[in-house]
Amino acid sequence: MVSLPKPTNPSLVVNEKHSIFMQDAPIVEPGANKVLVHVRACGICGSDVHFWKMGQIGELVVEGNCILGHEACGDVISVGENVTKVKVGDRVAVEPQLPCGKCYLCMDGNYNLCKEVEFSSVYPHNGLMQRYKVHDERFVHKIPDKMTYAQGALVEPVSVAYHGVERSQLTLGKAAMVAGAGPIGLCTLALAKASGATPLLITDISSKRLEFAKKLIPEVTTYQIDTKKSNWENAQEIRKLFGPTEYEQPPCVLECTGVESSIITGGFVTRRGGTLTVLGVGRGDINNFPFMHLSLAEIDVKFINRYHDSWPACINLIANKVINVDSLVTHRFPLEQAVQAMEVSSDPSNGNIKVMIED
Amino acid sequence: MVSLPKPTNPSLVVNEKHSIFMQDAPIVEPGANKVLVHVRACGICGSDVHFWKMGQIGELVVEGNCILGHEACGDVISVGENVTKVKVGDRVAVEPQLPCGKCYLCMDGNYNLCKEVEFSSVYPHNGLMQRYKVHDERFVHKIPDKMTYAQGALVEPVSVAYHGVERSQLTLGKAAMVAGAGPIGLCTLALAKASGATPLLITDISSKRLEFAKKLIPEVTTYQIDTKKSNWENAQEIRKLFGPTEYEQPPCVLECTGVESSIITGGFVTRRGGTLTVLGVGRGDINNFPFMHLSLAEIDVKFINRYHDSWPACINLIANKVINVDSLVTHRFPLEQAVQAMEVSSDPSNGNIKVMIED
Amino acid sequence: MVSLPKPTNPSLVVNEKHSIFMQDAPIVEPGANKVLVHVRACGICGSDVHFWKMGQIGELVVEGNCILGHEACGDVISVGENVTKVKVGDRVAVEPQLPCGKCYLCMDGNYNLCKEVEFSSVYPHNGLMQRYKVHDERFVHKIPDKMTYAQGALVEPVSVAYHGVERSQLTLGKAAMVAGAGPIGLCTLALAKASGATPLLITDISSKRLEFAKKLIPEVTTYQIDTKKSNWENAQEIRKLFGPTEYEQPPCVLECTGVESSIITGGFVTRRGGTLTVLGVGRGDINNFPFMHLSLAEIDVKFINRYHDSWPACINLIANKVINVDSLVTHRFPLEQAVQAMEVSSDPSNGNIKVMIED
Amino acid sequence: MVSLPKPTNPSLVVNEKHSIFMQDAPIVEPGANKVLVHVRACGICGSDVHFWKMGQIGELVVEGNCILGHEACGDVISVGENVTKVKVGDRVAVEPQLPCGKCYLCMDGNYNLCKEVEFSSVYPHNGLMQRYKVHDERFVHKIPDKMTYAQGALVEPVSVAYHGVERSQLTLGKAAMVAGAGPIGLCTLALAKASGATPLLITDISSKRLEFAKKLIPEVTTYQIDTKKSNWENAQEIRKLFGPTEYEQPPCVLECTGVESSIITGGFVTRRGGTLTVLGVGRGDINNFPFMHLSLAEIDVKFINRYHDSWPACINLIANKVINVDSLVTHRFPLEQAVQAMEVSSDPSNGNIKVMIED
Repeated sequence: MVSLPKPTNPSLVVNEKHSIFMQDAPIVEPGANKVLVHVRACGICGSDVHFWKMGQIGELVVEGNCILGHEACGDVISVGENVTKVKVGDRVAVEPQLPCGKCYLCMDGNYNLCKEVEFSSVYPHNGLMQRYKVHDERFVHKIPDKMTYAQGALVEPVSVAYHGVERSQLTLGKAAMVAGAGPIGLCTLALAKASGATPLLITDISSKRLEFAKKLIPEVTTYQIDTKKSNWENAQEIRKLFGPTEYEQPPCVLECTGVESSIITGGFVTRRGGTLTVLGVGRGDINNFPFMHLSLAEIDVKFINRYHDSWPACINLIANKVINVDSLVTHRFPLEQAVQAMEVSSDPSNGNIKVMIED
Repeated sequence: MVSLPKPTNPSLVVNEKHSIFMQDAPIVEPGANKVLVHVRACGICGSDVHFWKMGQIGELVVEGNCILGHEACGDVISVGENVTKVKVGDRVAVEPQLPCGKCYLCMDGNYNLCKEVEFSSVYPHNGLMQRYKVHDERFVHKIPDKMTYAQGALVEPVSVAYHGVERSQLTLGKAAMVAGAGPIGLCTLALAKASGATPLLITDISSKRLEFAKKLIPEVTTYQIDTKKSNWENAQEIRKLFGPTEYEQPPCVLECTGVESSIITGGFVTRRGGTLTVLGVGRGDINNFPFMHLSLAEIDVKFINRYHDSWPACINLIANKVINVDSLVTHRFPLEQAVQAMEVSSDPSNGNIKVMIED
Repeated sequence: MVSLPKPTNPSLVVNEKHSIFMQDAPIVEPGANKVLVHVRACGICGSDVHFWKMGQIGELVVEGNCILGHEACGDVISVGENVTKVKVGDRVAVEPQLPCGKCYLCMDGNYNLCKEVEFSSVYPHNGLMQRYKVHDERFVHKIPDKMTYAQGALVEPVSVAYHGVERSQLTLGKAAMVAGAGPIGLCTLALAKASGATPLLITDISSKRLEFAKKLIPEVTTYQIDTKKSNWENAQEIRKLFGPTEYEQPPCVLECTGVESSIITGGFVTRRGGTLTVLGVGRGDINNFPFMHLSLAEIDVKFINRYHDSWPACINLIANKVINVDSLVTHRFPLEQAVQAMEVSSDPSNGNIKVMIED
Repeated sequence: MVSLPKPTNPSLVVNEKHSIFMQDAPIVEPGANKVLVHVRACGICGSDVHFWKMGQIGELVVEGNCILGHEACGDVISVGENVTKVKVGDRVAVEPQLPCGKCYLCMDGNYNLCKEVEFSSVYPHNGLMQRYKVHDERFVHKIPDKMTYAQGALVEPVSVAYHGVERSQLTLGKAAMVAGAGPIGLCTLALAKASGATPLLITDISSKRLEFAKKLIPEVTTYQIDTKKSNWENAQEIRKLFGPTEYEQPPCVLECTGVESSIITGGFVTRRGGTLTVLGVGRGDINNFPFMHLSLAEIDVKFINRYHDSWPACINLIANKVINVDSLVTHRFPLEQAVQAMEVSSDPSNGNIKVMIED
């Protein structure tokens, strides 16, 4: 049996009654192809708060106790049979999904779309706001010494942005717009800059968030959405900021809110022949989708669902300082105070971007 | 001066008062890089009827007299200075657009998206339901002797389908669905078969149109949309026809109606990771766009606006008998009876698919 | 224990001394995620003969006894634990590779490029010229009742062609050339036709093989390589057959011989901006590679190594009669006469294309 | 008539006898769609020196007097009829090509491949080492005030690199290698960094050039090619620098020398499934092309010929300081001393990278 750094496994549990609480979870030995990770940092995602407060996201329902958390990094402290990719002592960022490995989507490399995927923190699959977690070796990724655990945990939101950027029409030397300056929007903006897209513009309804974005990426132009204006009008204001010609408009719009008005505005901003990529997740349906406009301008609309094969690239980007997203971590708590961490994360008034739980 | 086969230039004119009538239009000498075409066949498109009956399509408004028609083929009877691509006597299919040639869309090969494009038959740019038309040499394409003029005229609707197919995820050996069995849907179905997509399925609300489709492409499975069922329910019925597994569902859905319910149904049918390509044009906005569904399944949504660089390929396909769309021509009229031809085309009860005006 | 249709497991073995002989191999029970297949048809590939006569292909060396054969189809007669994809009684085509499933190439869907792949019939991994073979469930693919076992076995060479076609610039309505009218060239030609490429041309040095190709695909133009002409001269002759203009030349050339002169000729035929895809495998290095020509014309050069995710599509194509490659099977032998089958296959004078071993 | 800033038009002429000399060329009025540019900066390219010393590059032969120079920037001082894209007083970077505008390559956006292209400085088409040059409005591109003329002239070599990068598999967060630290290699390295590729490595046979590269892009790893080692051995040394695993090797190798040994080495370095893009131009043929290696690893080989639609993006990159290539300009001469400038440029011993002629 592995010698554990600390004897217990405190865990942040949500239940079907919208409660969260700490519980000492069992510590499991890793089977074949599995590793036991001591989680040293775990970020809180908006979806963790959503599962707590609303009890579901779309068809995913909290039907019983479930440990939350899917943005994690830690130490490998034990490995099962046949594990070759990592060894005890390696520091690893955790990719929190386990696809079936058999279906056409898994065979094709689109394992994020596997219908049988077990996603850590989605009931009934426990997440990583706990000390000790068993995970498949294929989905832990070694990080270099020069990276911190918190940086390793940030690879998850960066991966969402990375997958969006990959599917988009982001182009070296061409304009790009990001809609929404929350954690995903900020990671996306950082990747847009890292990809050499220029000029860059970000929108939000909050001037505070835009200031935060401007501090992160000083060369970005910011535009505060005017909620008294129509989507079309906001789009025209944004277009003026890019320049007088159609050519100067962004072939790449990365929508990171999932809000109907923002998606529509994004569609109106996109350059003829460009692509609107929606990273945000929102309501089931949207109305007033500007079909004729998108059709005449041949604007592709793409969507993303998580990520695949993104960890090594995102680790490279952070480790080699191509992007610096450290400032996204606005609050830190020890694991034992995970409940307080969740409360801070759920309060929009305190300016939190990313709350990190550490152990 | 060129010797004209016939002395006058009878033309089918629409005006802003929803009238259509025959008029003898002036015959113009071709300038530099222009050719004079004797139009020998011109098909009637739904948009010709729409301009007549409704006076506009989106922002395109009939503000005065305009000759209709943009599906044409004929003889080159005179060429202007510097013309090198064709010569007098060549039989040519006409690509009815003239882009600016200067903007980034023209320089990039996406000249169909040029904002300054002059499209034949869209006011104030006269179309091809006339005997003699001057056109740019770049946009007339020689057809081989083995092709008929009517086949040459059909290259235009086939081109719409071709551009949709090009932008889609149509794949050799994989399933495809076409929604809508009108002229564009039928051309699209023929191209889907020619591309080796299999199995094929087509939907429509009309059983008659489905019968027509089945005659054109016997291996296609047909599904009549049940208007009493929801979009989701119709989609599930269609999915059953493809097979029990997600793998068997079509990665490629080609929507050729532009109708909201059909677009949404298409989105529900598309295989996870697939592409819904909308060739049809419809209302300005659509509601109940199934955002969450498309997002979780990462289904790309693409649109088309006309075509570029499609004539030579579509001429090859017809001339080399890879596709046979002759049966789409259900009615034929001489040019002098173009008004009657338009009336037949506008009557949904007579089973017309494509009405051809010949001279 | 499974009840076996026949009690023994006769197998065609090659050894490091260039001998082939029949041996009764052990019958193995399928472990977890494995199935036991009764092989009902197995085609002979040129590489099987090459391993026998030459003892190696590149770095792959026959260092001891190894059962040959990797083009197989049969019945599932037993399944191990956790098998969900197929069941006893299913008829399956065998994809003869087993990648590691862990490396980036496996995770990305390019599992054919996995460095740890175990390829059936490459020493020390036994192949399928035997009655009973255990295989991973992920790499057996159910075929419908309407397909024969021989057709199921042909899915392997068709898959090689399919992967080449997938990587190429084969385009609906545009010209394509296939170099080489052996089994892979013929399968490639059939797929090129099925994809709607037109016109089609095939080359070979043998007029007999070209006649065979013409019988398979009557619309193809054939060109017999004149070995007294230079590569450039042969290329110019071929170009004349496509037509007088650069536009008419093939954007897609599919080279299926791997022979230096054929690759170079293919490069000279390819249309400016086109792609030369090399499916054939040949010597380690080639000389006189026409660098400046390819560079000025921006002709991409692509290569293939086997296939991935091709079985279901190729099964569809054969089962739905989009392609018909039955005539490729020129000789048939019962399993017990596998040695004679190998001898026939190795004799170029008897006009054999594909020799099929059946049980 | 336009009022000229200076009355004469001194020009650097090469002739078929390998002489270069200054001549006062005629000043031409711009016709329709043409502009007259006062060239304010013109860089010297290796090909200018090559035309002088060798009299030809491939099939392009200096058969008589021809003004050299194709890396230019200046002021619009007169515009012909119908010019809408720029006006007198605009500062413009010159794209030194004029394609036919009619062929399929022009219509498709691949106008760089047009067979009828008139390239400035290739006999008989005069180049831009002169004061006054007429050019087509489509191929002059406005630069912002914040850019210098020299930066505008550098857009040309940056465009070569940009087109190479566009065609390559350069990927955010993944490794890339550049072979050759001359002007194109350095521009390519700058763009690779701007695209977020990481880690980066550059090779050359000259340690001085590598030092220059390191000063330009401090995060790059340098490797000096050991000419006593084989291509394979050099490749293995380079691979060690990237890391122990195949995953860490570069999916993107950008070859900027056109030298056989460098191309082959690049092929051996490229990661399985990656792309070798050759930007360099060299001999007609190459030998020892590692066919089997590229085939087993499915490494695509791509080539470039100049550029298309790159000016606006490269202007953005320089103007918005995404890349800084100012230090490439090692020497400057006034137009009247263009002969001396050419002499400096042709001397490999003086450490020149880019010699700029200014007026």
